[in-house]
Amino acid sequence: MNRTAQTHHPIHTLLKDRWSPRAFSDRPVEQEKLLAVLEAARWSASAMNEQPWRFIVATKDNPAEFEKAVSCLKEGNLRWAKDAPVLIFTTVKKSYTKFDRPNRTAFYDLGLAVSNLTVQATELGLHTHQMGGIEFDKIREVYHIPEDYEVVTGIALGYYGHIEQLPDDLQEREKGPRVRKPLSEIIFAETWAEPASFVPQNKA
Amino acid sequence: MNRTAQTHHPIHTLLKDRWSPRAFSDRPVEQEKLLAVLEAARWSASAMNEQPWRFIVATKDNPAEFEKAVSCLKEGNLRWAKDAPVLIFTTVKKSYTKFDRPNRTAFYDLGLAVSNLTVQATELGLHTHQMGGIEFDKIREVYHIPEDYEVVTGIALGYYGHIEQLPDDLQEREKGPRVRKPLSEIIFAETWAEPASFVPQNKA
Repeated sequence: MNRTAQTHHPIHTLLKDRWSPRAFSDRPVEQEKLLAVLEAARWSASAMNEQPWRFIVATKDNPAEFEKAVSCLKEGNLRWAKDAPVLIFTTVKKSYTKFDRPNRTAFYDLGLAVSNLTVQATELGLHTHQMGGIEFDKIREVYHIPEDYEVVTGIALGYYGHIEQLPDDLQEREKGPRVRKPLSEIIFAETWAEPASFVPQNKA
Repeated sequence: MNRTAQTHHPIHTLLKDRWSPRAFSDRPVEQEKLLAVLEAARWSASAMNEQPWRFIVATKDNPAEFEKAVSCLKEGNLRWAKDAPVLIFTTVKKSYTKFDRPNRTAFYDLGLAVSNLTVQATELGLHTHQMGGIEFDKIREVYHIPEDYEVVTGIALGYYGHIEQLPDDLQEREKGPRVRKPLSEIIFAETWAEPASFVPQNKA
């Protein structure tokens, strides 16, 4: 399924072709691909090189572990994400290890790492779908996550399946238009809410 | 200057070659490249497609605006970031537009967008260096940032210059080793702090 973004300015294929499907194939993700995807996250930038990210990874190769991960999804995501061969829960350390203070950008740094992970996944023919709808308290409990860490998102990872495997309402969402705010609404220069002059009005 | 990451598992060149320099050239960033870099951020994923990111962009083409941006850097970053031809401040909307509730992953979503921006910059021969050391209150004041938005980071963007342009102490940091925690410390499976079995011990 081709969902290439209709960009106003040319961007790299790996960014343009990335989207978040629901129809995952149950084809396993090869071990070397899974490792490459996680290695990409590992090499991300972070404030003071703190690397606040920790990932909990469940694959269908271990059915008991996978079932545990599935049980930590909220119903809306459970419907489709259970089909993916890999489920990941992302967490961050809330304070610096080297300094006695909160890490203000821990969530942001985790986002940097997950984006790297997704670029690498796209390069390998895989897709990711990030989820906010997960059972935070349950995840903390079943994986014994310490107090100083916070659970942030879930990620379904795998190959694309067939749209027909989805319930009707999700098929519709899978085909919906890809939309973004124009650059004129997100890029300012001199002051807030004033579009930057270098953004052409006809290609905002 | 080649700072390619020594990875344990192969990852895409654009991720492996990314690093955060301090020695920026004052060569301007071409308008079409700047637009491509921002377009890459625009097409990022975000929770509920909220797109909470807003960017304030100053280029040396407008000296007064650039000077304003420079005046919002903390001293440690000012020393080198003033040489970059483009300075960006990143902000996020703290609550959802469509729903009456806080956006828990706004910082995370911004991180996703900035990582996309960086991948596109790398593709175009540019570098980014993200900064936490910025004057948050001053930025809010001089750019008239509304209450519901939070200033998150600064980004220096441009071409690489020459290491010799840096003060001695920063030359040392520019050449320091690139290090990351092993995968065994960031990837768990069954439970917290237990390395996942699929991570080879000799390539963790």
